[in-house]
Amino acid sequence: MQAVLDYLDANYDRFLKELCDYLRFPSVSAQPEHAQDMAACGDWLLRHCRAIGLEAELHPTKGNPILVARTPRTVGKKKPHYMVYGHYDVQPAEPFELWKTPPFEPRVQGCNLFARGACDNKGQNFAHLKAVEAYLKTGTELPCDLTFVIEGEEEVGSKNLVPFIKSQRAALKCDTIVISDNGIPQKNLPALTYALRGIMAIEVKLTGPNRDLHSGLFGGTVDNPAMVLSQMLASLRDKDGRITIPGYYKDVLPLSKFERESFKRLPHDDTKYAKFLGVKALFGEKGFTTIERKSARPTVEINGLTSGYQGKGSKTIVPSWASAKLTFRLVPGQTPKKAQKLITAHLRKICPPTVKIEFGDNHGGEPYLVSPTSPAALAALRTLRLAFGKEPAVMREGGSIPIVVDFKKVLGADTLLLGLSLPDDNPHSPNEKFDLDLFKAGMRMGAYLWQELPKASAK
Amino acid sequence: MQAVLDYLDANYDRFLKELCDYLRFPSVSAQPEHAQDMAACGDWLLRHCRAIGLEAELHPTKGNPILVARTPRTVGKKKPHYMVYGHYDVQPAEPFELWKTPPFEPRVQGCNLFARGACDNKGQNFAHLKAVEAYLKTGTELPCDLTFVIEGEEEVGSKNLVPFIKSQRAALKCDTIVISDNGIPQKNLPALTYALRGIMAIEVKLTGPNRDLHSGLFGGTVDNPAMVLSQMLASLRDKDGRITIPGYYKDVLPLSKFERESFKRLPHDDTKYAKFLGVKALFGEKGFTTIERKSARPTVEINGLTSGYQGKGSKTIVPSWASAKLTFRLVPGQTPKKAQKLITAHLRKICPPTVKIEFGDNHGGEPYLVSPTSPAALAALRTLRLAFGKEPAVMREGGSIPIVVDFKKVLGADTLLLGLSLPDDNPHSPNEKFDLDLFKAGMRMGAYLWQELPKASAK
Repeated sequence: MQAVLDYLDANYDRFLKELCDYLRFPSVSAQPEHAQDMAACGDWLLRHCRAIGLEAELHPTKGNPILVARTPRTVGKKKPHYMVYGHYDVQPAEPFELWKTPPFEPRVQGCNLFARGACDNKGQNFAHLKAVEAYLKTGTELPCDLTFVIEGEEEVGSKNLVPFIKSQRAALKCDTIVISDNGIPQKNLPALTYALRGIMAIEVKLTGPNRDLHSGLFGGTVDNPAMVLSQMLASLRDKDGRITIPGYYKDVLPLSKFERESFKRLPHDDTKYAKFLGVKALFGEKGFTTIERKSARPTVEINGLTSGYQGKGSKTIVPSWASAKLTFRLVPGQTPKKAQKLITAHLRKICPPTVKIEFGDNHGGEPYLVSPTSPAALAALRTLRLAFGKEPAVMREGGSIPIVVDFKKVLGADTLLLGLSLPDDNPHSPNEKFDLDLFKAGMRMGAYLWQELPKASAK
Repeated sequence: MQAVLDYLDANYDRFLKELCDYLRFPSVSAQPEHAQDMAACGDWLLRHCRAIGLEAELHPTKGNPILVARTPRTVGKKKPHYMVYGHYDVQPAEPFELWKTPPFEPRVQGCNLFARGACDNKGQNFAHLKAVEAYLKTGTELPCDLTFVIEGEEEVGSKNLVPFIKSQRAALKCDTIVISDNGIPQKNLPALTYALRGIMAIEVKLTGPNRDLHSGLFGGTVDNPAMVLSQMLASLRDKDGRITIPGYYKDVLPLSKFERESFKRLPHDDTKYAKFLGVKALFGEKGFTTIERKSARPTVEINGLTSGYQGKGSKTIVPSWASAKLTFRLVPGQTPKKAQKLITAHLRKICPPTVKIEFGDNHGGEPYLVSPTSPAALAALRTLRLAFGKEPAVMREGGSIPIVVDFKKVLGADTLLLGLSLPDDNPHSPNEKFDLDLFKAGMRMGAYLWQELPKASAK
């Protein structure tokens, strides 16, 4: 193992140069004009994986190819199998004028490497490749089989990935999946993210009179769809920030004492947070901290409201209709299907006979939870302790990463989210960066992980 | 008096031809390309007034000229003085393709005359001119002095009229003003409109976070301005349809028993009305009829809602801000100033500290009320009885006619609203028409009015 760590140290300058080469490809999956760059980036990655000793192939899809790279298998030896997921496509770099240096000309400044894709996801994923290179090039035996799946369409919805993993179900069957494509609270606080929120998005439209009516001639005799909508939406949340839909919290898994204690270690300051968001006062569910509210509790949000006249001045009408876009963040225990049923049934029930209710576009995503005290999670925490030399935290993430749920459904395996990105890394924004200290720590993390995880699988 | 009525009968065919000539001018005040037509129409009206024996002048304004036409004054004889207000401008005729015959080529079909401006306001106002012509041409002594004020900017907000009447305060000082520019419930039910609702329009904007926030990463920790807006708006009206702002009904003049009894004579069918508006159920203030709700009770209406993402699909954000356009219809007793104060103070009071509240554009209009049992009103009702041969109704109108309030303020005189338009006359819409039976009845009304009104002034 020391040989692996020494190799990582000794070859760091080359690794940084290679990462810069990787980052020079403008592999923007959303923009058709970068189709050639996507292909060139995939080819570079294929050649790179082969060069470091992996058995790699590019699998064509209806969109961009998916790279699959395996460690050479030892014949006759049954080892645990892990999958590392990443993506070689990046977000569009626009607006270019806000970048201090060009997004596809990587630049090191202090301990930061600036480029589009630096943290999301090329840099984070590359650390895993380098750790495996160290095993393979030093002849150190890996106690496990590894498969890298690196796709080129994460930033455009990964729509070809699920059919692919379904078609490769046997080859990709694994004990655990590792993804480094998320964040940690601060540089000296490594963390395992063990849960994600799900989502249920619902559009509701209320129609009243068959046309906009003159509010002088008709006002007072017919219900106002915008008022009814306001009343219905207002009733969805009580003054304690709880969703009022009957039975809505029934399936919500309560936070354990261990989790709530663990969250206290995460750095957070309500005053600074409120200032950062520009609000005078925060608001959330009574009885929970801000950290808990934003990562581990159900929410209802109005994303948009539309009704009547929205131009300058006034138009004295009773509008014919009003609509709202809503998202409900779901937490482990809840399902989008059941949430949708509860929400729409409730909205129908509280809708008065003066308007007609209709539901428009909706989509859902499952929440995700892996126990933070499972053997795999404990192995990940040991790994972080070794790689960072710091006591790691466990945390939940408030957003959704749909692919994690798909992996669980198709491959039956849990995912360990071992992020290497910092809160100020600007993914999806101008001047994206990756902290090179975390690049180094990430490589060490990759190295230790393949020692620690097999111990968990053995149990 | 019989000579006057006989003259109206004998000359009807000519009157209709003249009205058609008047309607041929596309005097569309809103459209600059019709500036020449406006001027030509004003000149035609000036010559016509002079031809029938009135002393007429066109007074230039910053916009279109105002025609003032007086009956010749009898030296040394003090008579009551009445003003008849009307307008020679019309609404744009677009969309032309929906007209069955061209809007500025008047067409008689059955008892209807189709043309833009037929009822609003050329036809209704012309009936008054013809009645006076009958007096002047038959040498019948008028028991009163009359001044016609016919402006060319009613359809664009009358902004030059108030400065003009202020500048002519002495000459225009009068006992009562008569306007025929509104409607009656049905052909055989003449009506005096004795009250109008006022209005207070208010725009409210709530700002939360300093930018749209990711609803996964931040949702649950910060208040949602669209939700707060919904809650605030929802709380403005209770389930009985009453406005919940403290003290809001304090100044509302109650409807008298006489009024409520009178309204019962107005034709109305809730089932037909709901069908006409396309709603399954009506809604309004408990304890009042539909007629009362739409013409004589305060209302709050949301005219428009704006917040967050309104495009296709979903955008999972906590929007930075939300806004609403509101109109409150006011009834006699209320003032826009006091209503505004009550409304904004209440909204500020119920606004939580999680968002910032701001008020945007606002404008107000006073309600109007003249007693339906005043001597002038009773004279108007006698007039309607004589002219139509039917028992007239008294009614309130739910909309606002700001000029009526201005006349009261500047000239100190009440206005009698003696409409000649039917519910299906399509003012402001394609295929505007005027019922020629009501043109005839309107001329008789004009003739009788100058007999009956002076009796009231004499009291």
